Amino acid sequence: MPASEATRHALLIDLDGVVYQGGHLIEGALEALDWIRTQQVPHLFVTNTTSRPRAALLEKFEELGFSARLDEVMTPVVAANQWLVEHRIRKAALFVPAATQQDFSGIDAVAPEQDVAADAVIVGDLGEAWDFRLLNRAFQFLMQEPQPRLIALGMTRYWRGRNGLQLDVAPFVKALEHAADCEAVVVGKPAPAFFEASLAILGVSASQALMIGDDIVGDVDAAQRCGIRGIQVRTGKFRESDLDGKIKPFALLDSIAGLPAWWERELES
Amino acid sequence: MPASEATRHALLIDLDGVVYQGGHLIEGALEALDWIRTQQVPHLFVTNTTSRPRAALLEKFEELGFSARLDEVMTPVVAANQWLVEHRIRKAALFVPAATQQDFSGIDAVAPEQDVAADAVIVGDLGEAWDFRLLNRAFQFLMQEPQPRLIALGMTRYWRGRNGLQLDVAPFVKALEHAADCEAVVVGKPAPAFFEASLAILGVSASQALMIGDDIVGDVDAAQRCGIRGIQVRTGKFRESDLDGKIKPFALLDSIAGLPAWWERELES
Repeated sequence: MPASEATRHALLIDLDGVVYQGGHLIEGALEALDWIRTQQVPHLFVTNTTSRPRAALLEKFEELGFSARLDEVMTPVVAANQWLVEHRIRKAALFVPAATQQDFSGIDAVAPEQDVAADAVIVGDLGEAWDFRLLNRAFQFLMQEPQPRLIALGMTRYWRGRNGLQLDVAPFVKALEHAADCEAVVVGKPAPAFFEASLAILGVSASQALMIGDDIVGDVDAAQRCGIRGIQVRTGKFRESDLDGKIKPFALLDSIAGLPAWWERELES
Repeated sequence: MPASEATRHALLIDLDGVVYQGGHLIEGALEALDWIRTQQVPHLFVTNTTSRPRAALLEKFEELGFSARLDEVMTPVVAANQWLVEHRIRKAALFVPAATQQDFSGIDAVAPEQDVAADAVIVGDLGEAWDFRLLNRAFQFLMQEPQPRLIALGMTRYWRGRNGLQLDVAPFVKALEHAADCEAVVVGKPAPAFFEASLAILGVSASQALMIGDDIVGDVDAAQRCGIRGIQVRTGKFRESDLDGKIKPFALLDSIAGLPAWWERELES
């Protein structure tokens, strides 16, 4: 293997807050993605989005003016299906958006209102669909004996929407863990297994990889705990106070637009 | 001070599950309370109830056939008000049942929908009134800079209602703590400060006091961690399996009805 191959760098790319925000591309994101493709940087879009199936994510990409293949996108649902197969679990109560249910094709899905036993309770980002009754139903499933496993589709704490910061899936998982005295299996960021699976898909080691994200905890710190260098962008949910804590990103960019110049200067010189 | 004064015992009394359950008195509770009054045992009703103001609690007492003064009832709201005064906090966002808001008379109450700064966010058991928007508003207050203090009116995990187990305040506090990266100040059981404030009201030391309750964790263990002897009753949410763990109550009674005889035998002989 030539030296240039051995030192090849790979990139894990967060989507929401890095490539786009709401319905709009981040300025310069398209050019940065074009550069990544032209340079043939091995890359994977690594997102905790569970509000839509992967196929719909690709449609959104197209609308925004770039395209990706299904196997370039890693989501918690992909990881959850792997976990369920490995643990031979077929009966799971789904607390996920309706559109995402289609991605759970290999299981017997139990609806929240069904009063039957479940082997797992899968919780995604339901956003405004959460109310007391729905959360209480997830809790009641978890109080069955034997206790089903609680599966969290990522542990993102919040995201920035049009009406300000919005709770994501993690707070609801924490509520359920405390109420039912259990610990969730996290499939998605910031679980190390999720980053390791992403590296395996790319066929690179942690030291070869970089993760670009807007979440100082879920992207940057989580990646760095796996030995992956983290690049923090100042877009999306980023706040300057994110830099006051103990987490030190390997690099700090105003946005993904600055990635090509930074990459060429810092990694290829 | 005569010896009889120095060795005087005082009693902290949980309400729900000890004195009454739902709308009914526990059998023999009235006679036990009469005995406590006749014997002039210093006592305080110590409850985590935040679903109604203290004045309405007293009305419920009257309906059930006994009476108490406002200053005989210690609730998380009383403790919260003390805490707010001590910390000179006047502006607090209230996420508590409407009926309980009247007990927060000394502060400038901020309503969830108001887009103003708050110095504290107070969270009680809102039950079915919780929905995404309300929880998200509490979160948004907590993301203000500087971050307001999160005050939890007790940390009860769940209770048994007509439709099975129901989430109480603690899971929602845990959700907010995780989302906003903060730690709640717990006013109410099982916080030591709540028991210490109760002892101060009675003017007794921990070693003089006993706590009678149905919750092996929130009443008995929490009191005993403060040096207060715990009396477990077999009424309310008590389950025989509660005795299988590490928590050993100082005494175990079938109900509060057995208290006078036990007290005379064990404490006054």
